[in-house]
Amino acid sequence: MDASEFRKRGKEMVDYVADYLEGIEDRQVYPDVEPGYLRPLIPTTAPQEPEAFEDIIKDIDKIIMPGVTHWHSPYFFAYFPTASSYPAMLADMLCGAIGCIGFSWAASPACTELETVMMDWLGKMLELPESFLARNAGEGGGVIQGSASEATLVALLAARTKVTHRLQAAFPELTRATIMGKLVAYSSDQAHSSVERAGLIGGVTLRAIPSDGNFSMRASALQEAVDQDKAAGLIPFFVVVTLGTTSCCSFDNLLELGPICNREDMWLHIDAAYAGSAFICPEFRHLLNGVEFADSFNFNPHKWLLVNFDCSAMWVKNRTDLTGAFKLDPLYLQHNHQDSGLITDYRHWQIPLGRRFRSLKMWFVFRMYGVKGLQAHIRKHVQLAHEFESLLRQDPRFEICAEVILGLVCFRLKGSNHLNEALLQRINSAKKIHLVPCHLRDKLVLRFAICSRKVESSHVRLAWAHIRELAGSVLAAEKA
Amino acid sequence: MDASEFRKRGKEMVDYVADYLEGIEDRQVYPDVEPGYLRPLIPTTAPQEPEAFEDIIKDIDKIIMPGVTHWHSPYFFAYFPTASSYPAMLADMLCGAIGCIGFSWAASPACTELETVMMDWLGKMLELPESFLARNAGEGGGVIQGSASEATLVALLAARTKVTHRLQAAFPELTRATIMGKLVAYSSDQAHSSVERAGLIGGVTLRAIPSDGNFSMRASALQEAVDQDKAAGLIPFFVVVTLGTTSCCSFDNLLELGPICNREDMWLHIDAAYAGSAFICPEFRHLLNGVEFADSFNFNPHKWLLVNFDCSAMWVKNRTDLTGAFKLDPLYLQHNHQDSGLITDYRHWQIPLGRRFRSLKMWFVFRMYGVKGLQAHIRKHVQLAHEFESLLRQDPRFEICAEVILGLVCFRLKGSNHLNEALLQRINSAKKIHLVPCHLRDKLVLRFAICSRKVESSHVRLAWAHIRELAGSVLAAEKA
Repeated sequence: MDASEFRKRGKEMVDYVADYLEGIEDRQVYPDVEPGYLRPLIPTTAPQEPEAFEDIIKDIDKIIMPGVTHWHSPYFFAYFPTASSYPAMLADMLCGAIGCIGFSWAASPACTELETVMMDWLGKMLELPESFLARNAGEGGGVIQGSASEATLVALLAARTKVTHRLQAAFPELTRATIMGKLVAYSSDQAHSSVERAGLIGGVTLRAIPSDGNFSMRASALQEAVDQDKAAGLIPFFVVVTLGTTSCCSFDNLLELGPICNREDMWLHIDAAYAGSAFICPEFRHLLNGVEFADSFNFNPHKWLLVNFDCSAMWVKNRTDLTGAFKLDPLYLQHNHQDSGLITDYRHWQIPLGRRFRSLKMWFVFRMYGVKGLQAHIRKHVQLAHEFESLLRQDPRFEICAEVILGLVCFRLKGSNHLNEALLQRINSAKKIHLVPCHLRDKLVLRFAICSRKVESSHVRLAWAHIRELAGSVLAAEKA
Repeated sequence: MDASEFRKRGKEMVDYVADYLEGIEDRQVYPDVEPGYLRPLIPTTAPQEPEAFEDIIKDIDKIIMPGVTHWHSPYFFAYFPTASSYPAMLADMLCGAIGCIGFSWAASPACTELETVMMDWLGKMLELPESFLARNAGEGGGVIQGSASEATLVALLAARTKVTHRLQAAFPELTRATIMGKLVAYSSDQAHSSVERAGLIGGVTLRAIPSDGNFSMRASALQEAVDQDKAAGLIPFFVVVTLGTTSCCSFDNLLELGPICNREDMWLHIDAAYAGSAFICPEFRHLLNGVEFADSFNFNPHKWLLVNFDCSAMWVKNRTDLTGAFKLDPLYLQHNHQDSGLITDYRHWQIPLGRRFRSLKMWFVFRMYGVKGLQAHIRKHVQLAHEFESLLRQDPRFEICAEVILGLVCFRLKGSNHLNEALLQRINSAKKIHLVPCHLRDKLVLRFAICSRKVESSHVRLAWAHIRELAGSVLAAEKA
């Protein structure tokens, strides 16, 4: 395919994309296919000779679309939102064309420098403390990671290196293995599974701290665990505080927990993967109070801030904590400027070496929406969640299972888990809307997350009418 | 921005991309900017109100392009190639529009199933042993990782879990920390820095085995290290064999090393990040002989197989080895089909949770080029490398420092490192071409990698004439 055919096919693809997103409401949100559906539909080997674009695009409709879960349908209420906006898509086209691999400043200076400045822009939108910003010669700064999971892992590894160096400096006879065997990390029992996984990968013990009645980790529970571990000769070194848990969007008590982390010399990482986007609105910023105690902070603009996946924003107060954990410098990656202090080689901030020019997406989205446009997007989602909440409250058969703070409503039919499983089964079999469950303690709960950029009150009301109707038949079947 | 404006702007962007790539030869390959150039050119905060697309696209030319290293210029000979093709860009547009996060089968069945089948297609193109393919109900299979670094890390973590379970089953009194303190991984002293990093992250000792005169890891050196470690009470568990090293594209002796790994019960991971693409050509397939000894194999179609970044292809013989290392199943990620055996939840195969619909790129590229088109791309690059090699051989001032096997030529002026540093400095100051150096033992060497999809014999000859001219002035300055 040469440039002139790309001009033609690219424009057709632009229309295909616009048609898809304009018409997405009319597609069934969850597919009908069964596991293994795709393999029989396509050849068993790649073709030897080139095929025509027309044949491929036909197969998109015939083979791919029937197996797609439509995440951007206004009837998709599952998981959490994932970002989708036209400005981000335009930026991604440009990113693909430039196609640089920005592992070092020299590998493409614009790629590194725009990222640093965009992370400062975003940090200022969140009113992060100055110490997290790169500015001209700050000690902190931001980096785009691929996912919150990677951010948590990177923070844990940096903390592990830091505590190991500190202990080996004080007690040179200690081996790395001895230290690692004693390290303990902490998070709430409501934290995302990626935190547990980071502990596994890092080879350290992760302790799940029992959360309180509001699914929030509190100071007393953390302090008790830390004291016990210290008494047992273990080394507490890392705490993940979750702001906006995946199950029910609860918030750990950062203002209580922060001082403990600082006092006990434990690295404090904040995971606000979903909720973080809301902190650009002044009325939600208080949920981030206490961030000044943290060593690292992360949230996902690719969830709720209209920057398409992947774009996970991570800040640290001391960039040398990250680079100290990862820095390896073979000659083929060195360049003239690297010791100047002014420049950033992001390969030392992350797990992979390669990285795309993802800050273009942030730049396009921030400028084409403006802060006000982004705030309006957040506010609309929160308002729709409260609308769904108020509908629920009018129906005494249902209960709300966690405080509705942002765009997620956790609810269930009063009664057994079995009853709620039956309701969930009916909802996901009908495929008019799509949602997923969670456990809150021993209760099976349904999660209704406001997701699509195009979801409106009418969709929420239709979803509610549908849920009520199915609930009616479940309850009737129960009685029968 | 609504759909109708996206139709307009998207088509303008398609033309912008085509213009950029058509005209890339006329741009200076390496930018003139100094560290910190970008920050003063843009505002210190994001705008409150939306800005117009026209203003943003103007800033691309004014602010971004002057700071871009043009990786797809035919005068770019640095690092290794990174893929750029129009079919991959078209597929990425579609991927952005569908915008699903394919962490589980249910999250978007097409996303998972196309990936599994594309990895089978690609595995067959490479003539991988059947045991690496997923087929209908195989025990192996492939997955798209973000980078070779992640693939190495994932393999090391899977191997670490496997050996830990095995030892704890035999000796229940052994703690995980005790085992980890004794684990030893091995790679060549020519292996990529990401291998050392994987060892650091995984918290295990990594031993660099001295390579032979051809920069190849050999059986005797590995066996010696393994025997010494076993005698010292340590536990050899993991070997990375590199096919096509970053420095000079040398090949470890897989046919010798494979049997040792199998006999000593060490996980064998093959990293063929760059060279792997060449194995689709029958005349280069012999370089992969011995893959049957491996537990995992990885290469990067996003380097040399025209599938834009990111797309790193990894296969394992036993998928349960990977999923065993990572599997954590909170309720909100569970779905009806997950215990059926027929389905794949790729979140258990990788570090992050989220993942894009990257197999679309493979599908578009494989179909629109056909296997023959991809082979022609590889062959052209190898032929151009040999053309550059033969030009070099005609000039007695230069020496070739490693066998030219694929698309990389390592060369230097006969004489001191100082002399070659001066040559490098002149090349990269002139900015007519761009390349990077490496160390081979104590020698500073220049790497000439055939990179661009559009590089032709004429560009290679111009580059050579330019290098000769600069060499002349360096040598003259030396004598003066």
